Amino acid sequence: MNPIEFVLPGEIEKRSFEIISEELEKRQIVLPKEQEPVTKRVIHTSADFDYAETMCYSDHAVEIAKELILKGADVVTDTNMALAGINKKILASFGGEAHCFMADLDVAQLARERQVTRATISMEKAAAIEKPVIFAVGNAPTALIELHKMITEGRYQPAFIIGVPVGFVNVVPAKELIMETEVPYIINRGRKGGSNVAAAICNAILYQLRR
Amino acid sequence: MNPIEFVLPGEIEKRSFEIISEELEKRQIVLPKEQEPVTKRVIHTSADFDYAETMCYSDHAVEIAKELILKGADVVTDTNMALAGINKKILASFGGEAHCFMADLDVAQLARERQVTRATISMEKAAAIEKPVIFAVGNAPTALIELHKMITEGRYQPAFIIGVPVGFVNVVPAKELIMETEVPYIINRGRKGGSNVAAAICNAILYQLRR
Repeated sequence: MNPIEFVLPGEIEKRSFEIISEELEKRQIVLPKEQEPVTKRVIHTSADFDYAETMCYSDHAVEIAKELILKGADVVTDTNMALAGINKKILASFGGEAHCFMADLDVAQLARERQVTRATISMEKAAAIEKPVIFAVGNAPTALIELHKMITEGRYQPAFIIGVPVGFVNVVPAKELIMETEVPYIINRGRKGGSNVAAAICNAILYQLRR
Repeated sequence: MNPIEFVLPGEIEKRSFEIISEELEKRQIVLPKEQEPVTKRVIHTSADFDYAETMCYSDHAVEIAKELILKGADVVTDTNMALAGINKKILASFGGEAHCFMADLDVAQLARERQVTRATISMEKAAAIEKPVIFAVGNAPTALIELHKMITEGRYQPAFIIGVPVGFVNVVPAKELIMETEVPYIINRGRKGGSNVAAAICNAILYQLRR
């Protein structure tokens, strides 16, 4: 067993990223410069190097997301865990707010009435926000399916989609649907993802803009 | 690509667990009965079957955790994301409360003064709670290292430790340290874990007690 290594609190994250870089090198994986801080932070939050192979970015995705945040875009997520994890202070410093409508009473009621998931209704509620919205979906493929429906029906255009729901039912095809649209995206292909991954992606972008 | 499958909202989780069971069977993995709902929920939250091989339980761990909750034990976690994810309603129905001290101002100040992590100070703060405490560590190995120190120095005895920090610096040995103590535990050996995993383990236990 490795012994406990003495690392100053302020150095732990730096040391972690060094180890991630070393292991990527060993695996002969070279990440595109723009995507590197995002994919590495996802590996940092999961200790799972599979993400180095499955994270998908539309053209200039990270730059587009950064510009949106600089212009004050809001973030809507589908779990309160992701909401808790997103650095809301940096987001607010540019005028953006983070929302999660999943626990709202009207959302629960409408979902019951219409026999759809709360995530579906949450996306409709988010579409009413009158400014550009970055969607950070870490849990519900139904959120992505609803976004795709609104996009293809011409009812709503999300500014950006972070699509990293996790799971076994419709997760894989829901992600592929989003990648067929014109909306800029960061998506983790396959079953893996999660609220932690959604928050990590948001934070990797936010930390680059911290002032 | 698989097409989108129509599944009623209330059926999605059930279907997911069926798929997990099928895949475990394919991999010829048989989980011990008591541990099954916990390990399966961790796989459900991560879509990562590695957990089927790395989750470690002390003797009767799940039964012990259930009894603690029935008797009103509190839960202390080291991240606000895990706190957001834990089902606090079920916990409260037995008299338990969930806490995270990481964002407390006194914790930040003491951590700075003593050049230790906020997680270390959080554990000291938790040790002052005058009832049995289940620790759910999803992020900071330093939380486990501090718990181990308090245990071996005879200063404090946690009722239970869920030890699933994720990462690259001291995560692996910190988990091993806890497994050397007499404290009942659920630990994921290796680098993997996270706030989502910590919350999933808590919820897998809480859902068995829901009334």
